[in-house]
Amino acid sequence: MPTDTAFADPEMGEPFLLTPGPLTTAAEVKHAMLRDWGSWDGDFRAMTARLRAGILALLGPGAEGFDCVPMQGSGSYLVEAMIGSFVPPAGAARPGKVLVLANGAYGLRAAETCRVLGRPFTLIDKGDYLPPRGPEVAAALAADPAISHVLAIHCETSSGILNPLPEIAAATAAAGRQLLIDSMSAFGAVPLGPEAIAFQAMVSSANKCIEGVPGFGFVVARSDALAQAAGNSHSLALDVHAQWAAMNRTGQWRFTPPTHAVAAFLRALELHAAEGGVAGRGARYGRNRDTLVSGMRALGFETLLEDRWLSPIIVTFFTPADPAFDFARFYDLMKAAGFIIYPGKLTIVDSFRMGCIGALDHAIMARAVAAAGEALRTMGVRSAAPPAAALAARSAIAP
Amino acid sequence: MPTDTAFADPEMGEPFLLTPGPLTTAAEVKHAMLRDWGSWDGDFRAMTARLRAGILALLGPGAEGFDCVPMQGSGSYLVEAMIGSFVPPAGAARPGKVLVLANGAYGLRAAETCRVLGRPFTLIDKGDYLPPRGPEVAAALAADPAISHVLAIHCETSSGILNPLPEIAAATAAAGRQLLIDSMSAFGAVPLGPEAIAFQAMVSSANKCIEGVPGFGFVVARSDALAQAAGNSHSLALDVHAQWAAMNRTGQWRFTPPTHAVAAFLRALELHAAEGGVAGRGARYGRNRDTLVSGMRALGFETLLEDRWLSPIIVTFFTPADPAFDFARFYDLMKAAGFIIYPGKLTIVDSFRMGCIGALDHAIMARAVAAAGEALRTMGVRSAAPPAAALAARSAIAP
Repeated sequence: MPTDTAFADPEMGEPFLLTPGPLTTAAEVKHAMLRDWGSWDGDFRAMTARLRAGILALLGPGAEGFDCVPMQGSGSYLVEAMIGSFVPPAGAARPGKVLVLANGAYGLRAAETCRVLGRPFTLIDKGDYLPPRGPEVAAALAADPAISHVLAIHCETSSGILNPLPEIAAATAAAGRQLLIDSMSAFGAVPLGPEAIAFQAMVSSANKCIEGVPGFGFVVARSDALAQAAGNSHSLALDVHAQWAAMNRTGQWRFTPPTHAVAAFLRALELHAAEGGVAGRGARYGRNRDTLVSGMRALGFETLLEDRWLSPIIVTFFTPADPAFDFARFYDLMKAAGFIIYPGKLTIVDSFRMGCIGALDHAIMARAVAAAGEALRTMGVRSAAPPAAALAARSAIAP
Repeated sequence: MPTDTAFADPEMGEPFLLTPGPLTTAAEVKHAMLRDWGSWDGDFRAMTARLRAGILALLGPGAEGFDCVPMQGSGSYLVEAMIGSFVPPAGAARPGKVLVLANGAYGLRAAETCRVLGRPFTLIDKGDYLPPRGPEVAAALAADPAISHVLAIHCETSSGILNPLPEIAAATAAAGRQLLIDSMSAFGAVPLGPEAIAFQAMVSSANKCIEGVPGFGFVVARSDALAQAAGNSHSLALDVHAQWAAMNRTGQWRFTPPTHAVAAFLRALELHAAEGGVAGRGARYGRNRDTLVSGMRALGFETLLEDRWLSPIIVTFFTPADPAFDFARFYDLMKAAGFIIYPGKLTIVDSFRMGCIGALDHAIMARAVAAAGEALRTMGVRSAAPPAAALAARSAIAP
């Protein structure tokens, strides 16, 4: 188990999580949970206020027209809350319709959420990893005036692709529609400023790039849109307007908040600021990714994506063609070496994923690469090169 | 700050939470959160399996027909998930209708949830504290054959009343209807065995009588009802059937689980078992309540409820009539003495509440009473007796 770096917690002897969240958090973030808070008490209300202001501050210039609404639950709860609260239902004065941009599991889940909630939607499904581009968004919006909202995934962690949000936002704004963003795994490490990217609402989660623990997520939305969202939601618990209105009136969460996760998040926000905010966090993750990708390529592994689409969040590698490679064994060997990796989520070719986010740095990524090399040797894998068909698929990505 | 008991955490110097959850947890429960877990990893899947089995074991005899489904979010999320998943919506082969038994805020919130979800309901609203009784349930069910489900609040923490679940369950079963139970603040300290109380589903939360930290709750439901609940839910995130089916298939939560809260809960379950399970936990809480009530009565305070309706969970006291009593100041004085108390939630008379649950014992409750006496002296309150009108209201409760 790793014990020799600033990021490891030598007391626990636990593996690093090279996963897209929950991820490895700093020891001091976890230590912030060693206290119970009364959720009605003024001390906790002050913590909630700090949490909301701290998240808004990450937007940068243009944040003054926005408000932050934390909500209990996982990221998928937040996506559902956003769709249900900002897309007016059938029966509303102007019912909404969503253009869902999918290139992986999270885009498809957003479409499924629209279906369950009875919100009409059109799906642009780019398959496993092709990015949705501005011109096709513009064409889809021009073709269907009923579409009120575009829903985009910032970083689709199925493949690790960083989708081209600026051109999607520009096409959406040019057509006079509203943009909803699932920035679950990107917010806090990839800029998402309203001056560069016009959006109505975005959602993210405590346990991603801010490096908190799981238990809640948050909506960042235009204040006017929050005010107008009354009565839209299909749900009492997931009603963003109701949560926002009650929180602004009382300073409290409507229902029991995950107090310990909130305390951990506040400490995580301090560490985020100390690292230089979004730019600093993104720089470390970028270096993590570069160390990982160059090291794995040196072992013969190849990435699903060409360099320009690689996010600093998580990287998908093709499963080696060598029949001596067995993913379950590779997983166990990596775990024994102190690294939890992640299975693939592609539909066409076999793959696995390694995350670059969390309380870990490039030195730890170098050790992860070394552990992967050792695992290959243990399994008797001579080459980590992918099947030729996998590389052929990759070359189909538009430049 | 209290530091001299087995329950206090001397490192933190934090106040005791005399609140109905989040509550004061044991130091070792919080220490279980000092590690990050990969939610996909086999170790965490094993933890989820232990969690589910541990909760089911608390049912006692008759548990074999039931299954446990943990879900992310607060207690109110779980209530919504239960209603949405077990009460068939309009358009189903046999649409459901709910008889909601309310005597406080949580019953009324359940009714509001039915309204938002579009589930027809009839409300028996007993006001602030009168218990719903078996005969009136039987009469309501006889009068309306469309009612498929009765929804009861086990302990209504607005008043602290322990509702007569056995007679409600008997009336429901006799009429051939299904019982849904919100046992948020009672499960784990008040018996809820299916041999004594027939029910289809119940919900509770991690941060109540099991003494975990907030972040998730759980449904305990008949396995046949879980299987039949497919397609009922209005929500993707709050679909109990989908969560159950995926968890039984993969061993994983569908969406990111609050891993640290799960680890804390497992430790809390061990402490619960070591204390003698439901009986042992209930006995300690009962002694906490007895110490609190007798001590507060000796100071002149009076309880909203007669003894037979007092739960071992939380007790409502009338605000003293003496004009020198100021609740905000009383709250601050109690907090300074190391005790967080809870405001009242009654509509008619002023009141406040003190919880009996959490990692605290009768010696700590005696110190809370002493702190209350000291606060009265500091404020110059001569008598803690309530207004005469408050006592008159109390005497209206049926025997």
